[in-house]
Amino acid sequence: MADDARTLANGGKHIDFQTDPSRYRHWKLAVDGEVATLTMDVDENGGLFEGYQLKLNSYDLGVDIELADAVQRLRFEYPEVKVVVMRSGKNRVFCAGANIRMLAGSSHAHKVNFCKFTNETRNGIEDSSENSGQKYLCVVNGTAAGGGYELALATDHIIMADDGAAAVALPEVPLLAVLPGTGGLTRVVDKRKVRRDHADYFCTIEEGIKGRRAVQWRLVDEIAPNSRLDARIAERVKALAATSRRNGEGKGIVLTPLHRSIGDHRVHYEFVDVEINRAGRIATITIRAPEAPPPADIDALLAQGAAFWPLQVARELDDAILHLRLNELEIAMLVFKSHGDGALVAAYDDLLEAHKAHWLVNEIRHNWKRVLKRIDVTSRTLVTLVEPGSCFVGTLAELVLAADRSYMLIGSRDGDNRAPPAIVLSAMNFGPYPMSHGLTRLEARHQADPSQVEQARAKIGEPLDAEAAEELGLVTFALDDIDWDDEVRVFIEERTSFSPDSLTGMEANLRFVGPETMESKIFARLTAWQNWIFQRPNAVGENGALRRYGTGERAQFDMTRV
Amino acid sequence: MADDARTLANGGKHIDFQTDPSRYRHWKLAVDGEVATLTMDVDENGGLFEGYQLKLNSYDLGVDIELADAVQRLRFEYPEVKVVVMRSGKNRVFCAGANIRMLAGSSHAHKVNFCKFTNETRNGIEDSSENSGQKYLCVVNGTAAGGGYELALATDHIIMADDGAAAVALPEVPLLAVLPGTGGLTRVVDKRKVRRDHADYFCTIEEGIKGRRAVQWRLVDEIAPNSRLDARIAERVKALAATSRRNGEGKGIVLTPLHRSIGDHRVHYEFVDVEINRAGRIATITIRAPEAPPPADIDALLAQGAAFWPLQVARELDDAILHLRLNELEIAMLVFKSHGDGALVAAYDDLLEAHKAHWLVNEIRHNWKRVLKRIDVTSRTLVTLVEPGSCFVGTLAELVLAADRSYMLIGSRDGDNRAPPAIVLSAMNFGPYPMSHGLTRLEARHQADPSQVEQARAKIGEPLDAEAAEELGLVTFALDDIDWDDEVRVFIEERTSFSPDSLTGMEANLRFVGPETMESKIFARLTAWQNWIFQRPNAVGENGALRRYGTGERAQFDMTRV
Repeated sequence: MADDARTLANGGKHIDFQTDPSRYRHWKLAVDGEVATLTMDVDENGGLFEGYQLKLNSYDLGVDIELADAVQRLRFEYPEVKVVVMRSGKNRVFCAGANIRMLAGSSHAHKVNFCKFTNETRNGIEDSSENSGQKYLCVVNGTAAGGGYELALATDHIIMADDGAAAVALPEVPLLAVLPGTGGLTRVVDKRKVRRDHADYFCTIEEGIKGRRAVQWRLVDEIAPNSRLDARIAERVKALAATSRRNGEGKGIVLTPLHRSIGDHRVHYEFVDVEINRAGRIATITIRAPEAPPPADIDALLAQGAAFWPLQVARELDDAILHLRLNELEIAMLVFKSHGDGALVAAYDDLLEAHKAHWLVNEIRHNWKRVLKRIDVTSRTLVTLVEPGSCFVGTLAELVLAADRSYMLIGSRDGDNRAPPAIVLSAMNFGPYPMSHGLTRLEARHQADPSQVEQARAKIGEPLDAEAAEELGLVTFALDDIDWDDEVRVFIEERTSFSPDSLTGMEANLRFVGPETMESKIFARLTAWQNWIFQRPNAVGENGALRRYGTGERAQFDMTRV
Repeated sequence: MADDARTLANGGKHIDFQTDPSRYRHWKLAVDGEVATLTMDVDENGGLFEGYQLKLNSYDLGVDIELADAVQRLRFEYPEVKVVVMRSGKNRVFCAGANIRMLAGSSHAHKVNFCKFTNETRNGIEDSSENSGQKYLCVVNGTAAGGGYELALATDHIIMADDGAAAVALPEVPLLAVLPGTGGLTRVVDKRKVRRDHADYFCTIEEGIKGRRAVQWRLVDEIAPNSRLDARIAERVKALAATSRRNGEGKGIVLTPLHRSIGDHRVHYEFVDVEINRAGRIATITIRAPEAPPPADIDALLAQGAAFWPLQVARELDDAILHLRLNELEIAMLVFKSHGDGALVAAYDDLLEAHKAHWLVNEIRHNWKRVLKRIDVTSRTLVTLVEPGSCFVGTLAELVLAADRSYMLIGSRDGDNRAPPAIVLSAMNFGPYPMSHGLTRLEARHQADPSQVEQARAKIGEPLDAEAAEELGLVTFALDDIDWDDEVRVFIEERTSFSPDSLTGMEANLRFVGPETMESKIFARLTAWQNWIFQRPNAVGENGALRRYGTGERAQFDMTRV
């Protein structure tokens, strides 16, 4: 169920994360040479759920799914694009932020998942700027309030109209009794480095800040009168393009639709299969190895396009994770399995490493990084089972390292003539896929003794059986055939009986050992506090500010400070 | 009201943070040369509130107030002590953690404040080890469960009896549907560097881990059979003493009782006065400058002992903050003011800097650091008003920098012949008082341009009027007499009308710009998630695990993963 408080519009049965520009209702994507323009022009009758209108360029998850799609396509389909101009298609309003009626009527789980996805989309914009050289310029032509300003904050440069009306604002605290929780509080002080007392003032006024003070306080980068706005945008586009390291060679590839079938108990893609056991509250995600060796060279890879195995499997896996997060709320655990010829997986990893300087290979690597990060912040228990026939090699071995717990079979099973399972590490386990807090999963694992990362590196390419993998600290438990069934069964039964909330909190803490970055702070300090507030009567109770908003009645607060 | 769900034992009207060893009911402090022993022997009938018994060395806030007092006294009263052995006075149990009946029946605000104080106490133990050279050795002679193990985690070295019974455990998730939230999850992976999947296993079993696996997984440092336990402790004490840089010179000073009167609307100390305006939901904390110049030398300082102004005022301020946190839950805002001769404050700061190598001066500086950190994590809006007659100099100027917002008067008031207010910086603003995330308050303030910290340093000792202070970014707003009253009044009225929850989340984010440390992660990632869980029906609802614990009935969970 997508949201037990809401009904999907148009009789939809689940939230679908797949779209393409021909289907967009809220965004327009236009490309002109090295400049793309992303225009937000929300169709107020195009809400994902019934029961609210998306006025004033306010958004719901459906709007953000289109944005995420556009940001992704720009990276893969437009190697020539160096600057993306984000602007509004409405007069005098940039974006009013997340739709309040949508939020007020959503289940707690949907609120949390909605914010998580929109955070990932904004992080994706920053990732595109940093790692694809697609620089984002935001044109604030009117009010950019709440989530609207948070969207602007994710870009590299904000130009605001200096017309006495355009303003940036984070009015959540005074207006709604919640936080600017989609990165806003963190980005204001950590990214834009607004002084904390100025930020305190800014975040407690409804009307926002316009004109020169917005520049002086670092809330926007520059202001321009309407008469000079277009000229200023053109100058800035040129300057940003000059800083881009996007080399713009060659043609893009098209992100063709995934082949997916959604059944009652199964979501099936070409290389990813999801079996949903609702009674047991488990989803088993099996990833299949490629069946053919990788293309011989970059031209052949370009010819494969979206069918190139590492790209296709990442897109399928990403869609599967999002589907489970938003549509299968009672699934407690994701069990990862794999199947196929590990040597072929290794060959693809070799190609990803050998050609990492090529723009498309770079995109594919960063895309895998983002998919794995999405898994890291998915609030379901992550378990990986390494069994005969599996192919946890390199990139796929990250799923062993990402798991809260992993089990690996020692030897073979009685009557199974396949070889014992092996894990194989590749260069991909040692850098290209950092977690959101900046460490690789192997580094996070071996905080006690970083030399263990080096010991693992020395084994790149070697098949590691269960005992060797346990010795290197790659798996939690190596079990023989006699113990496997009982141990795994008891673990799964126990785990799925625990309070989901305590598991969410526990996993979110244990997964992120060591440092924090701006990105990880958004998912930790900021999101955890927002989720607390999203549970408090002062925000979501009958008389709370979210519920009372727009009714003309004032919210009533319990004034206890906690 | 200390806890609107509970009645204080023995007719108490407020929670009192002042105690001394002669009054301890739960701890015994014994000192023998360079070794102190802190024995936890909780009086089960000595609960702070009515309605529960503190069985099996379980604790409530009252137990922790004694521990905090003991840790503090060890630093000031026993310069000769290099090692503190923490052990249990009960047979076969070290400590069962926070008392569950106490937790189950507490208000949400009390739970959160209780955890915050116990976190500060455990951080204080680590601070003592790091900055006073008092090393903590923990002897686990039986079960150390939940908060019991979290207490052990705060020490430098854990020895566990290897008797088939003694074990360490974090059973909160499986047993109570809450987190080991007093630093446990963070310290297991960040301090003890237990591998995250091992930690996952450890935190989901009720029975804990004993013997060799506890050592292999880094949960304890060593195990010893009971027959050799005392000998092993003696060896370890010797080794720890050898690593201590406590120089043990001279005699300690006695932390004499504070002179305090608690009235209906006022808490008064010698140098700190708290005026409580319950209707306005404001507490005004006024700090008075010393009246005499500092002692001429260290001997004279030692002779003053606890009456030495910087120490006395820090102790008074600390008690005032704790009183307000736990006993005045509806106060929304702490307004800091100061009064007196700034030149004398400066002279005391000069002494603290000139003699910083002396053990007692070192203690006083670190104590101020801890008091200021306590203010940073106090979930009330912090405002500082800099007016004529004030003395925000050096150490006291940290209260300007700690504030969410500060206002400073330009010039004087009509009819007031005192000089316009000035802020004066000292060496104390540039290092000795870092926040929990490792930055000084000036560094946190000037993330955009670190050269502003250097500009401020160049002004050490110079009186800075409102315009100069605004120019240097030390105050939020400089206002003249005409604007002051209205602006400050409107701000206070607006601020106190907002939802307390959203302010808590907002302030906790804006105050901690930039990096995170283990200590700040405990107050951020860990605590924010725990507070969320403390609000969820799966833990605290009628059928939740905290309520059902010990009733024989199983908790019922909403199985939605959020």
